[in-house]
Amino acid sequence: MAQLWGGRFTDGPDPLMQKYNDSLPFDKVLWRQDIAGSIAYARANIKTGILTEQEFAEIEKGFVLVAKEWEEGRFEAKATDEDIHTANERRLSEIIDKQIAFKLHTGRSRNDQVATDLRMWLRDELRVLETQLADFLKTTVSRAEKEIDIIMPGYTHLQKAQPVRWSHWMLSHAFAFAQDLERLREVRSRVNRCPMGCGALSGNAFGIDRDSIAKELGFDGITYNSMNSVGDRDFILEALQWGSMFMTHISRWAEDLIIYSSLEFGYVRLSDAYSTGSSLMPQKKNADSLELLRGKSGRVFGLMCGVNMSIKGLPTTYNKDLQESVEPMLSLLTTLTDSTLIATGVISTLTPNPTAMLTALTPDMLATELADYLVRSPYRVPFREAHHISGRVVALAEKEGIGMDKLGFKQLKGVDERFKEDVMECWDYERAVEMKSAKGGTGKEGVKEQIEVLRRILGADGE
Amino acid sequence: MAQLWGGRFTDGPDPLMQKYNDSLPFDKVLWRQDIAGSIAYARANIKTGILTEQEFAEIEKGFVLVAKEWEEGRFEAKATDEDIHTANERRLSEIIDKQIAFKLHTGRSRNDQVATDLRMWLRDELRVLETQLADFLKTTVSRAEKEIDIIMPGYTHLQKAQPVRWSHWMLSHAFAFAQDLERLREVRSRVNRCPMGCGALSGNAFGIDRDSIAKELGFDGITYNSMNSVGDRDFILEALQWGSMFMTHISRWAEDLIIYSSLEFGYVRLSDAYSTGSSLMPQKKNADSLELLRGKSGRVFGLMCGVNMSIKGLPTTYNKDLQESVEPMLSLLTTLTDSTLIATGVISTLTPNPTAMLTALTPDMLATELADYLVRSPYRVPFREAHHISGRVVALAEKEGIGMDKLGFKQLKGVDERFKEDVMECWDYERAVEMKSAKGGTGKEGVKEQIEVLRRILGADGE
Amino acid sequence: MAQLWGGRFTDGPDPLMQKYNDSLPFDKVLWRQDIAGSIAYARANIKTGILTEQEFAEIEKGFVLVAKEWEEGRFEAKATDEDIHTANERRLSEIIDKQIAFKLHTGRSRNDQVATDLRMWLRDELRVLETQLADFLKTTVSRAEKEIDIIMPGYTHLQKAQPVRWSHWMLSHAFAFAQDLERLREVRSRVNRCPMGCGALSGNAFGIDRDSIAKELGFDGITYNSMNSVGDRDFILEALQWGSMFMTHISRWAEDLIIYSSLEFGYVRLSDAYSTGSSLMPQKKNADSLELLRGKSGRVFGLMCGVNMSIKGLPTTYNKDLQESVEPMLSLLTTLTDSTLIATGVISTLTPNPTAMLTALTPDMLATELADYLVRSPYRVPFREAHHISGRVVALAEKEGIGMDKLGFKQLKGVDERFKEDVMECWDYERAVEMKSAKGGTGKEGVKEQIEVLRRILGADGE
Amino acid sequence: MAQLWGGRFTDGPDPLMQKYNDSLPFDKVLWRQDIAGSIAYARANIKTGILTEQEFAEIEKGFVLVAKEWEEGRFEAKATDEDIHTANERRLSEIIDKQIAFKLHTGRSRNDQVATDLRMWLRDELRVLETQLADFLKTTVSRAEKEIDIIMPGYTHLQKAQPVRWSHWMLSHAFAFAQDLERLREVRSRVNRCPMGCGALSGNAFGIDRDSIAKELGFDGITYNSMNSVGDRDFILEALQWGSMFMTHISRWAEDLIIYSSLEFGYVRLSDAYSTGSSLMPQKKNADSLELLRGKSGRVFGLMCGVNMSIKGLPTTYNKDLQESVEPMLSLLTTLTDSTLIATGVISTLTPNPTAMLTALTPDMLATELADYLVRSPYRVPFREAHHISGRVVALAEKEGIGMDKLGFKQLKGVDERFKEDVMECWDYERAVEMKSAKGGTGKEGVKEQIEVLRRILGADGE
Repeated sequence: MAQLWGGRFTDGPDPLMQKYNDSLPFDKVLWRQDIAGSIAYARANIKTGILTEQEFAEIEKGFVLVAKEWEEGRFEAKATDEDIHTANERRLSEIIDKQIAFKLHTGRSRNDQVATDLRMWLRDELRVLETQLADFLKTTVSRAEKEIDIIMPGYTHLQKAQPVRWSHWMLSHAFAFAQDLERLREVRSRVNRCPMGCGALSGNAFGIDRDSIAKELGFDGITYNSMNSVGDRDFILEALQWGSMFMTHISRWAEDLIIYSSLEFGYVRLSDAYSTGSSLMPQKKNADSLELLRGKSGRVFGLMCGVNMSIKGLPTTYNKDLQESVEPMLSLLTTLTDSTLIATGVISTLTPNPTAMLTALTPDMLATELADYLVRSPYRVPFREAHHISGRVVALAEKEGIGMDKLGFKQLKGVDERFKEDVMECWDYERAVEMKSAKGGTGKEGVKEQIEVLRRILGADGE
Repeated sequence: MAQLWGGRFTDGPDPLMQKYNDSLPFDKVLWRQDIAGSIAYARANIKTGILTEQEFAEIEKGFVLVAKEWEEGRFEAKATDEDIHTANERRLSEIIDKQIAFKLHTGRSRNDQVATDLRMWLRDELRVLETQLADFLKTTVSRAEKEIDIIMPGYTHLQKAQPVRWSHWMLSHAFAFAQDLERLREVRSRVNRCPMGCGALSGNAFGIDRDSIAKELGFDGITYNSMNSVGDRDFILEALQWGSMFMTHISRWAEDLIIYSSLEFGYVRLSDAYSTGSSLMPQKKNADSLELLRGKSGRVFGLMCGVNMSIKGLPTTYNKDLQESVEPMLSLLTTLTDSTLIATGVISTLTPNPTAMLTALTPDMLATELADYLVRSPYRVPFREAHHISGRVVALAEKEGIGMDKLGFKQLKGVDERFKEDVMECWDYERAVEMKSAKGGTGKEGVKEQIEVLRRILGADGE
Repeated sequence: MAQLWGGRFTDGPDPLMQKYNDSLPFDKVLWRQDIAGSIAYARANIKTGILTEQEFAEIEKGFVLVAKEWEEGRFEAKATDEDIHTANERRLSEIIDKQIAFKLHTGRSRNDQVATDLRMWLRDELRVLETQLADFLKTTVSRAEKEIDIIMPGYTHLQKAQPVRWSHWMLSHAFAFAQDLERLREVRSRVNRCPMGCGALSGNAFGIDRDSIAKELGFDGITYNSMNSVGDRDFILEALQWGSMFMTHISRWAEDLIIYSSLEFGYVRLSDAYSTGSSLMPQKKNADSLELLRGKSGRVFGLMCGVNMSIKGLPTTYNKDLQESVEPMLSLLTTLTDSTLIATGVISTLTPNPTAMLTALTPDMLATELADYLVRSPYRVPFREAHHISGRVVALAEKEGIGMDKLGFKQLKGVDERFKEDVMECWDYERAVEMKSAKGGTGKEGVKEQIEVLRRILGADGE
Repeated sequence: MAQLWGGRFTDGPDPLMQKYNDSLPFDKVLWRQDIAGSIAYARANIKTGILTEQEFAEIEKGFVLVAKEWEEGRFEAKATDEDIHTANERRLSEIIDKQIAFKLHTGRSRNDQVATDLRMWLRDELRVLETQLADFLKTTVSRAEKEIDIIMPGYTHLQKAQPVRWSHWMLSHAFAFAQDLERLREVRSRVNRCPMGCGALSGNAFGIDRDSIAKELGFDGITYNSMNSVGDRDFILEALQWGSMFMTHISRWAEDLIIYSSLEFGYVRLSDAYSTGSSLMPQKKNADSLELLRGKSGRVFGLMCGVNMSIKGLPTTYNKDLQESVEPMLSLLTTLTDSTLIATGVISTLTPNPTAMLTALTPDMLATELADYLVRSPYRVPFREAHHISGRVVALAEKEGIGMDKLGFKQLKGVDERFKEDVMECWDYERAVEMKSAKGGTGKEGVKEQIEVLRRILGADGE
């Protein structure tokens, strides 16, 4: 034993080091995957001759009992159980014939075992998340369909720009989330590849049939290089990148709704279920749900940054640094799942205020209509010129201190001779909205097409 | 004008603000895309009636001249050209009839224009990158095929673990890069959707045929919601996430090679083209290329973090914050392209040292073989027990101060009766390597299969 | 030369590698520091006996000429000048006796040279930044003093909460920036330590007097371990962390002003110098300056993340990865300097709208006053109860569809007997503001004290 | 109640939202600070007239009982206790006269309360951390002093460069950590400012004496602007930035030790307490402790990134997003504390291998000595020339296939006439080390001075 230089350290093991090293407190969530993986591995080892049918049956039976203990909360961890893998195998060896249990780990390493467990767990969770995300989208699409007639101010730079449909706004976020859905499917398919049978780093020495293990465990296929397989946590990093993008979308959606639910805007009212009051100010109603959603975009981004940092510059195959990817993965999924459900709750229960939206529309949001009028007129005024003329009308209205729509036809004509009486038709928000009839625009047909597109992405049960 | 509170500020515009705001110094790289986009937009405006065939011909002719100026480095920017879009249109209006040029921007906004230009540029660059990445992979695969007989120590935790093929190590990184290639194709297909015709936020008011524009510009399709289209920079963020993952792979690959090219390991020698000397120490030869590659993983990661931060919490549609995504995109592509080429240069020209690798193999790396021997023996020793016995052999060799392979058969038998004379066959590195015959393992057949898989991913011309 | 596996690579050096490696394109900004450092180093080498007085005079004279070439833009880089250090020394050796010039680098390495140059440059720039930041603060404090009478709605959760002074709001940001100023001074003092004389890693072998070099170059002292000195880029990382915090403050300040300058709030109007219009919508006026400021918080954060990633896990002393810290440092300072000046411009020239602020105050923002009234009353109503009663008044007003202040005294009495006639004094925003008289509150005296505190932090010339 | 669009949502509150919102599960660690804060606040409210001495005594007595419940693990949370603040106050109101308990929150808001609790907790923890960090440094300094005679290869670019003292290497990291210690003191002093008495945002309406509260709670002073005080989490972000820098240092220190404990280097052997074995390979001994330390640099960096992202762009004062800073703060301190202790354990118990270090020294590491010899010779050979000559000697030795030190004097003379017989003295590693006698160098006196400097930084009890 080395000479000791500090006071705290004695000759034996350091209990803090044990705690620092042990992963059971968090990786126990993998118990189900770990057991399923071990059973599949054992079954494949009948063919290799490592296990007899009889021995396999013993192992399987034993694991059923271990699983039962976990399910019923009766599993008792021992101090030596440094992770879920040792815990499960230790328990198995107490339940069944030790000599049989000791054959389980033949040709296997914790390196391929943990990678398999993590991928299975993540794949399962992402599948659940996919459904939740689809539900969120369906709810949004459903609102968009039913509330298609509501018109509101559309913004750029947080300045009133042009009138748009409330549904068009909802769908503008939905399309970001729909792309998340597409990406999620891609990510999941890459997660779902089986590293079992890669050993510690160089492969399995007993000719195990990796394809059959993969199939039994519901994987889409196997990973192809054993060294890569044990040292790779890309599947976690990719899920984290996905989550970071998704939560960034959530942050923008929440930002809009927070602003729209301010007293100054007043376009939406959150359900009480997603608001809270103040301990000091009796009149307050705060959009806590949305602020938490927005704030948690930071959490997920941070998890992603942290794991990327942990992985950066690591040498070949497995290094213990990789253990630092497990807790972030767990925290990621909790946050994503909760956030998706909360967001669905918010959008399901909020109340738009069509009157407030309508009232907030101002005639200067129709300035482009005026320019477009001139463009469409028999004079075919070039847009740059028309834009300029329209700008002068804006200025005139400002000077007169009235809305643009309150200017008389004569005043318009005074600005430019080419205005005819039908120019007054421009002062119609609904008309302005419907003029945006090209694909992707806020016209009713365009919005309906978007709903169709989203339903196609959502699949058969898009309704 | 507001009262002035600071000394520097006068009544007029702030030149620093102009500089802070102007994007021409960097977005001029988009000149080609901007012109192509404008031509396509103009062509589509024949059908809407905005332009006559004649007028379109004028515009197209004009743009051909503008493009020529760019190509020949003759384009002269004016102070008022705040971005590539205004610069090109301004120049057009000088070359052709102003009244015609002024029609170009009808129904269009810089918001959909810039999004279109960025997507086109990025799509084009990612296509080039894809080829470069494929070349890097092909080079690696080619080396792996030809150098398949070289055996080296495989590591976990930077500790010697088991013998592996040098090719297996090369391919362990190749599989990470191959997954990058798959992802890159997915990313590119999402980038390649056309937002032109979305206007400022609410759509196009002249019924423009967005599909035909998209087709002319080589897009795979259109984006479906105008508000989303102008406020979305996900395509850049996704490319940045991709780059961050790729460069993390580069960082691990470089780390391995830096360690392997240290004097202590000595497994590879870098070509002089990718090394440098010291200004103080005449004997030094440093792997600068690899260190730069590893270091630049930070750069790309930082670009990704920055853009994600810039986008977080932005309200609906376009906000000027989004301009902060352009320079990162340019820097990303330069870094990725250069790094891929440098990495290809390094792997193309480095010299492995098979003797050093062989010499570095130590008999204790075969400890698992000893355990496996017992497992395979007629006694069918359970692995956990065999592992324990093998551990005692390791300890014995340590105690005797000799290599495990130098222990006599009797000594082995002294540790466990079940060792028979054929146990001495275990002391063969090649044999240990070939025993890993399951898929994905370091056995020769497994490595060859990996090469096949990679060639399939690389496509028809994988050779 | 190694066998070549790729097509692009020939036997010679790779020009791309040269470009990838060369830092002159960006580190040339260090020319002044590099020359000053070399002169100081040479002067110290008179005492070591490496240089005669005569030789030193030659070197100094030569460098004066080189400096002149840089100043006048006449310095011509050669292909072999891979960085500013080789460029300057190469040029020196052309101007003066080569044999003398060749003595300059004795006992020195680029490792200590570059660290010295970077620290000098950064220290100089941070000093400039400190002045700019102080100016920004002074402008804010000055406005706060003069506009102390303006009252506006104070927000929590973006919901109207309690009336506050406009100055109080301005100072709420100023205190964050003032803490930045404190931190900046600390950072700068740590940057300003001199590593010259540390050699490549192990120190200087000619007994050079490091303290005198440090003094000549304006450093506060020397760094104390040569290995640490050449491998340390903490001074850059710390500046980046500083910048990231500062820009986060800028992002919050900008967010407030963007919201306050929306049409819905309308509390401030930006000067035209810091706004821009729309290419499509003639009526728009966008707060581009503030959006860029907010967006650039991402850029700086990204630079910080990138450098931290590049440094993570690097082995001892200098590795080429560290070169990746130089460009971020340059980009950081440009961004910080520009942003501070722009922010100063914005705050110098914006116009608050006191009427809009006053109009936006609503009686329910005084609900806490009602509770406080009961607390202060002879009945000494416990606050929790008073808060509840006040909540019932809020509800009553909502039910009646009128402002709380429009409820008659009888109605209040109906809610709780303990309301007396003087309760009507609560409906006074100014009074509510002045009631917050404890330190740090929005009462006039409290705000004035804050101004004093800030002036103390700003130092003698805080006015 | 709004119409419901999703299936999961009913008319009542959403239990998931409650869980998403509630912070008690983690902020209960603040119980001690929360109670201390409430007592101090209550005491100050005697002077304001809100509480009588009697009432205060009741409150204090009640809180003593609540604290006891926490201490003994008997505190029972109720479903309505959404955070530690409501939990403690609710419990107080059950223990003492409700009417008195209800007076506690007068003029206070959870906004200033939570900020106070967080700052107190963090300040206390940082104080503990400071001691631990000092212990780590003391251990290192102590080793450096006792093992000053061990010489090892010094590296740049992971290539052997020049011989250095093992102590010099240890101190190279110690100086980074010492700067962390300096910074930590600065951070703590900024954390330790008291926001209590700032109310919800606008201040305290009962003239509370904030200075006396701050003093009672051990703060260094108060915060100066109430709006800033409730919306500011810079103190957490700054601690996170500190941690990120510190853990980056840990990552580099760990990287060195991982490499040095590889079989190829073999310079140090970790104590068994900080190593682990392999489940598959009996011969393995892995530096898990160091890999975890290196990996956790990612965790802390990620926490910092996440919080910065959460805060970015938030509008004025308190927003619920800020709750996302609490868990990162807790995770930060656990990680920092554990990591510092583990690192101390590692450095306390590791065994250097002086023989391996000595054996690893190679004559070409003395190439600079040869150049320096010529510089110092009566010929005063310019360094650039001497460097070149030394390079030719390196080449000659390589050509001859022997160590440089095995070249005969004649061979050296063959390279350059100016070599005299005493050149052979250069082949002495100890001499080369001692030649680096300038401050900060690896000469024994320099190393001793470094130890002194560090002891000064550590303060009176630096021993």
